[in-house]
Amino acid sequence: MINKYAGLNSLAFSLRKGLFYIHKRYICCTGMKSLHHGDIYLKSNQTVVLIMEKLLRVNMSNLTVKEEKVPEAYKDLGGRGLTSRILLDEIDATCHPLGEGSKLIVAPGILSGTKCPNSGRLSFGGKSPLTGGIKEANAGTPLAHKLASLGYKAIIVEGLPQGEGYHLLHISDAGARLEPAGELAGLGTYEFNSRVRGRYHEKIYCICVGPAGERKMANAGISCNDPEGGPGRFAGRGGLGAVMGSKKLKAIVVDTGKTFDAPVVDKEKYSEASKKFARILRENPVSGEGLPLYGTNVLMNIINEAGALPTRNFRYGRFEGASKISGEELSARAKARGGVGAPTHNCHPGCVIRCSNIYPDENGEALCSPIEYETAWALGANLEIDDLDVVARLNRICNDLGLDTIDAGGALGVAMEAGIIPFGDGQAAINLLEEVGKDTPLGHIIGQGADTVGKTYGVTRVATVKGQHLPAYDPRAVKGIGATYAMTTMGADHTAGYAVTMNVLKSGGYVDPLKAEGQVALSVNLQVATAALDAMGLCIFVAFALLDNPDGWPTVLDIWNAKNGDNHSIDDIMEMGRQVLRVEREFNRRAGFTPAHDRLPEFFRREPLPPHNTVFDIPPEEMDQMNEQFNMIK
Amino acid sequence: MINKYAGLNSLAFSLRKGLFYIHKRYICCTGMKSLHHGDIYLKSNQTVVLIMEKLLRVNMSNLTVKEEKVPEAYKDLGGRGLTSRILLDEIDATCHPLGEGSKLIVAPGILSGTKCPNSGRLSFGGKSPLTGGIKEANAGTPLAHKLASLGYKAIIVEGLPQGEGYHLLHISDAGARLEPAGELAGLGTYEFNSRVRGRYHEKIYCICVGPAGERKMANAGISCNDPEGGPGRFAGRGGLGAVMGSKKLKAIVVDTGKTFDAPVVDKEKYSEASKKFARILRENPVSGEGLPLYGTNVLMNIINEAGALPTRNFRYGRFEGASKISGEELSARAKARGGVGAPTHNCHPGCVIRCSNIYPDENGEALCSPIEYETAWALGANLEIDDLDVVARLNRICNDLGLDTIDAGGALGVAMEAGIIPFGDGQAAINLLEEVGKDTPLGHIIGQGADTVGKTYGVTRVATVKGQHLPAYDPRAVKGIGATYAMTTMGADHTAGYAVTMNVLKSGGYVDPLKAEGQVALSVNLQVATAALDAMGLCIFVAFALLDNPDGWPTVLDIWNAKNGDNHSIDDIMEMGRQVLRVEREFNRRAGFTPAHDRLPEFFRREPLPPHNTVFDIPPEEMDQMNEQFNMIK
Repeated sequence: MINKYAGLNSLAFSLRKGLFYIHKRYICCTGMKSLHHGDIYLKSNQTVVLIMEKLLRVNMSNLTVKEEKVPEAYKDLGGRGLTSRILLDEIDATCHPLGEGSKLIVAPGILSGTKCPNSGRLSFGGKSPLTGGIKEANAGTPLAHKLASLGYKAIIVEGLPQGEGYHLLHISDAGARLEPAGELAGLGTYEFNSRVRGRYHEKIYCICVGPAGERKMANAGISCNDPEGGPGRFAGRGGLGAVMGSKKLKAIVVDTGKTFDAPVVDKEKYSEASKKFARILRENPVSGEGLPLYGTNVLMNIINEAGALPTRNFRYGRFEGASKISGEELSARAKARGGVGAPTHNCHPGCVIRCSNIYPDENGEALCSPIEYETAWALGANLEIDDLDVVARLNRICNDLGLDTIDAGGALGVAMEAGIIPFGDGQAAINLLEEVGKDTPLGHIIGQGADTVGKTYGVTRVATVKGQHLPAYDPRAVKGIGATYAMTTMGADHTAGYAVTMNVLKSGGYVDPLKAEGQVALSVNLQVATAALDAMGLCIFVAFALLDNPDGWPTVLDIWNAKNGDNHSIDDIMEMGRQVLRVEREFNRRAGFTPAHDRLPEFFRREPLPPHNTVFDIPPEEMDQMNEQFNMIK
Repeated sequence: MINKYAGLNSLAFSLRKGLFYIHKRYICCTGMKSLHHGDIYLKSNQTVVLIMEKLLRVNMSNLTVKEEKVPEAYKDLGGRGLTSRILLDEIDATCHPLGEGSKLIVAPGILSGTKCPNSGRLSFGGKSPLTGGIKEANAGTPLAHKLASLGYKAIIVEGLPQGEGYHLLHISDAGARLEPAGELAGLGTYEFNSRVRGRYHEKIYCICVGPAGERKMANAGISCNDPEGGPGRFAGRGGLGAVMGSKKLKAIVVDTGKTFDAPVVDKEKYSEASKKFARILRENPVSGEGLPLYGTNVLMNIINEAGALPTRNFRYGRFEGASKISGEELSARAKARGGVGAPTHNCHPGCVIRCSNIYPDENGEALCSPIEYETAWALGANLEIDDLDVVARLNRICNDLGLDTIDAGGALGVAMEAGIIPFGDGQAAINLLEEVGKDTPLGHIIGQGADTVGKTYGVTRVATVKGQHLPAYDPRAVKGIGATYAMTTMGADHTAGYAVTMNVLKSGGYVDPLKAEGQVALSVNLQVATAALDAMGLCIFVAFALLDNPDGWPTVLDIWNAKNGDNHSIDDIMEMGRQVLRVEREFNRRAGFTPAHDRLPEFFRREPLPPHNTVFDIPPEEMDQMNEQFNMIK
């Protein structure tokens, strides 16, 4: 457990560059011979922990990289907590999201880089070109662990390059540098990932943007590798790929053998609590059975049964073809076709849920990984497409171009609404989506997401909040998630406060999904908890177990405390979540958002949804009043 | 002056329908045999004025029209004062501008329908699909006089029709009715205006939308006839044509011989003051000489000389080819080519300035009327096009499709910025603009205006405020107009507070255009006065004389008082203007606007403009503080 007197040069180098800090709870000790990042060192019976965590500032205007000391105020932050805080502190909220003053922040979670189960979420933050507000999108990927293991609390990409060329940011144990992207620019994410390994070697991991990001499309996401090096783990929502593309940063290449090398103060307690946490996750019926068996797409039949599966651009709550694009069907096909993989699959090392999948084509070759429920809905039921192979092909095109699948499906749905292509026509949908890669005017329209398609074609039936398209749960039949869509600073986002859990899955309790009562409180509680989980770097699917099992949160608390040798309380976790929401609301306030933006499109309030024939009737005042608590930053 | 005992049936009919009210300042008198709208009647030495003013409510959902009594609160309102007030009172500010809850309001000015000089402005109001906020756009047209003469204080078009067909609203002395538009739908404004006279007769006047409005494009304006029945008088800005198009109302056809038949209480005083006002206007060098001689395009050389002519999408303040597209050149060509007309021309009866023009082609045939300065700039200098014939052709395409020329020029400029076509290429600009009429994806993009072109192609150099494109004065070299662009609720709009007058033309004083000091106060004073003029129905070009001549405002006051037999003060005029601004800010507040929206794009603050090499440096706080006074509605 104690690892000392090694790496003198490394420390000396670090000292010179001022790259490390002494963990605040322990006194600084000078004169030790050598220490590595994360080492624990005993001197005169005092424990000294060197956490050489750092910020990496990448200036694209002058093409320099600089490692910086982590400001005291950021030391306890991570993931979404850190991306949002840096944005509030460093950028003018009224700046153009794709302009010189805009920044892209990348931050692994507080627990990333450790063996805590499901702690491999990597947060991306920026001002969203889709919503005009603050945005955090995270992905489960080995890169969260690797960046945390290298000591990077955050990467801040700022400025705009003068020239036309794209660049790569190369990060390794030796440090970071910018390189010309050369012939790797312009490539789709599949081809990029295949060719970038030719330039470096097989064991690198990459964050990249596809052609959509390079073209600064408002629906461009950021691709992260899965453990096999596939490009399918996306920080998809809100157009952060366009922010990265505007900075002409094609990719971040991470070359390190380290995965679980982030410092932990009390390793024994940490390991014990982590094992307990894994057990708790495995014992929960959702995270231990439903998700591992069929992936997130286990929800297709469940939400359809609940009458909340938005069909034909939110006209109906049930889709005849739902079972044909469900997780059960996906699993059966994957098994029958053999080939490279089937449920279940993990998105990052240390995941004990393994809800991801690899969908094979007719020949058993990997076609797409993963097909999530929200994607199968957006590119399936939403468009009245009931062919899983078509859904997989559309999903693959999104992955390759680097588009968020939810808003891509939304864009296709609105295009169908406008009469550009017919509902239910899979081949037409594929052709239309491929326009995005062809740089045509229609492709530019589709690549901006549903909101722009609606505006451009004068369509009013556009299911967006703050410009971002609604995910796979109709807010008239799952009203708690409707409150989340409306209230969150992120634009319509199910992951911001996943009320489906109590509205439909009955994890942790039950709130009638068809009634207005109780939904706002439910949503807000979940928004707070989710913000904390996003800061920790934990996958939100741990929430089912946290809600169901009274041992859940105390175990997460033990892990957090063991990590840094702290003595936090459960309320400190929740306070961390509340603070994230306050920071984000303050950013949006500065950017010009008001409660008038915390509203669903009017057709949800006017038009009853079959089969329950309910409208969204949560009083706006109730949402505004509840949000008030986050309006004053502490 | 007294005109009684005529029209018994008319009164009886009106009484039955409750269409009239007794002017509040006079007692109701019953038992008179007959009175017409506007008649003055003597009984027992008391003057009784019947002003059978009415609102016309056009419900497109059930295709009904209904005349309504004017609510007491609206009796002293008109023009922009009335359109904005009805919007605040009747629509949910968060509604979709093209949805069921949105409305289009049409209102002649308070003085319209009379022989007061330059009182023929017709206001259109709605929630703008371009800005998302309140919008008033007005046009000089005989229709202002005619609708006022028929007693219409406002037309309120609401609801959405179920079917696909378009309709016409037909208004005559006999009342109003909806008719199917039939084969008149889908036509460009020139063809529409030519064919609609075949259906009715030659002497009708029309308000209509072109294909852009029918396609609900955010840059669609509303065409109004000039005295010859031409379609070139546009309420252009902010996309109100899309609001009209969304309601499937192709046109409003007005069939009446009345022009100056609105009621006036003290006709003698009115006539006298009006004559004096005409004299004042003719004596002013701008409204009496500059504008009549060369039209608004007299500004091309002046603004170029001032170094404030935005060139190549706001890169430079001077354009080499400015003189080739100037008012002087326009006048010379019109004279040389002979044909149908030349400067000067009037947009409505009673105009004594006559700044409009009819530009002939090589054969002396009318090509376009009018070519305004802002249009010649938007389609000329802004695109580095120096050929007036090309400008005229682009202008004609805009008129025919029903597009606002400023945002159309902005859209072409951003398309050039995106590399879709080269700067300076007139034929390419014509071809690209014609796409809008061809219903192609690129046409849909261009038809939305500059903001959408920028978003769709990832261009950040987009000179818009609140989504509306800047007009022909660079805010770095005419800082007062920059304050107006930023502060007004309307989106970038020179007419909202035309500070060019003191910054460049030195009418009414001088404020150095290159300095930040004094601009905000200048802008706000002008915004208040302009709002009052817009409510009166007066052309803003009367403002030069009002600023220069101490007899100006007192004469307008005399006219206003004589109209209704009131005893207002000058401050009542200004208070009317302030109240308009308060109402509009309150609407925008409800719609979600904040001071963060009262900002110019960041490149105006970062990038110096040659030749003066100044940036826009008015402190945002100064603008916010000044706007505070309008934040509380009285």
